[in-house]
Amino acid sequence: MVPVAEPISRLSAQLARLPGVGPKTAQRLAYYLIGAPEAQAMELAEAIVLARKLVHHCPVCGSYTDTSPCAICKDPKRDDSIICVVQDARDVLAMEKAREFNGRYHVLLGALSPMDNIGPDELRIRELEERVKEGGIREVVLATNPDVEGEATAVYIARLLKDYGVRITRIAHGVPIGGNLEYIDGVTLARALLGRRDM
Amino acid sequence: MVPVAEPISRLSAQLARLPGVGPKTAQRLAYYLIGAPEAQAMELAEAIVLARKLVHHCPVCGSYTDTSPCAICKDPKRDDSIICVVQDARDVLAMEKAREFNGRYHVLLGALSPMDNIGPDELRIRELEERVKEGGIREVVLATNPDVEGEATAVYIARLLKDYGVRITRIAHGVPIGGNLEYIDGVTLARALLGRRDM
Repeated sequence: MVPVAEPISRLSAQLARLPGVGPKTAQRLAYYLIGAPEAQAMELAEAIVLARKLVHHCPVCGSYTDTSPCAICKDPKRDDSIICVVQDARDVLAMEKAREFNGRYHVLLGALSPMDNIGPDELRIRELEERVKEGGIREVVLATNPDVEGEATAVYIARLLKDYGVRITRIAHGVPIGGNLEYIDGVTLARALLGRRDM
Repeated sequence: MVPVAEPISRLSAQLARLPGVGPKTAQRLAYYLIGAPEAQAMELAEAIVLARKLVHHCPVCGSYTDTSPCAICKDPKRDDSIICVVQDARDVLAMEKAREFNGRYHVLLGALSPMDNIGPDELRIRELEERVKEGGIREVVLATNPDVEGEATAVYIARLLKDYGVRITRIAHGVPIGGNLEYIDGVTLARALLGRRDM
């Protein structure tokens, strides 16, 4: 029984709930926060509280924002006629970093997963259908994850929207740029072959 | 320019100040904290604030505690005649996990490092000398880190205490248990040879 002061073990336990933070890392971080300048620890605590107070889902696209609607939804320079559908708010960030897409977004807040009791009603799929129904949309790009749930979600949405006269596309699957063929799995290589294009 | 809401980027920036947390991990953690149940985020923030409010250095040994003195210093079952000197509060934990030491501790809160302007007065060395001067101590085990600063600190303390008639020892250097000779550096192997014992 190592006698750790209760506030330290409580802090460790809370830090250990973060993704990718094991008990050893949590303990190291706890001791670091106790030994760091007090202002730094307080600024972190305040940043957590403030983020939870000010950040909410954008009522239009569903991504995280502290304004209503979010910066992307209210940007007049973006193309209203194309919507990119992603699973999570973080995917919007990843997509923006690619600097290739200038339309609007729609965040589903998850993917269909019957095993976890996540059906269409648990996601922002109805809101997507409403946006398409309102008109003015030419294309919906389905950028859900390239895994079982993401594919199922893309197929579901494609079927749901097929009668609205909009073009439904799916981001390409293939070998990642900079990758080494030797290390790429067979399923990805097969998809890369099927999706081959003339040069 | 990826438009991230200001409270999210502030939280990311604060998380990125933690040791071993790079900007990507910080962003992942920030989004996680925003998406997690609100109670979980608040519990983490509160745990940080509470730890800073309740935890202080033990007035006797210098390790972190929320009581005065700390649990180890006031444990009547421990041996008062032997003091283990370590650099940081976390080292007390590591030592306790080894379940081999049943004396008292003295945390220096660092090691001598002229490059960083850390001299004897910046550490809790005077307090150690006071404890030895008060009497009743038979042995001081120097368990500072096996690096340049730790060795220099051990040598400094050994010289400082040599006239008090207490036994001054240094923890053994050698090959770690479970290690593979092939992967152990030459300096450690040399120390292991020099410190060899009859079987």
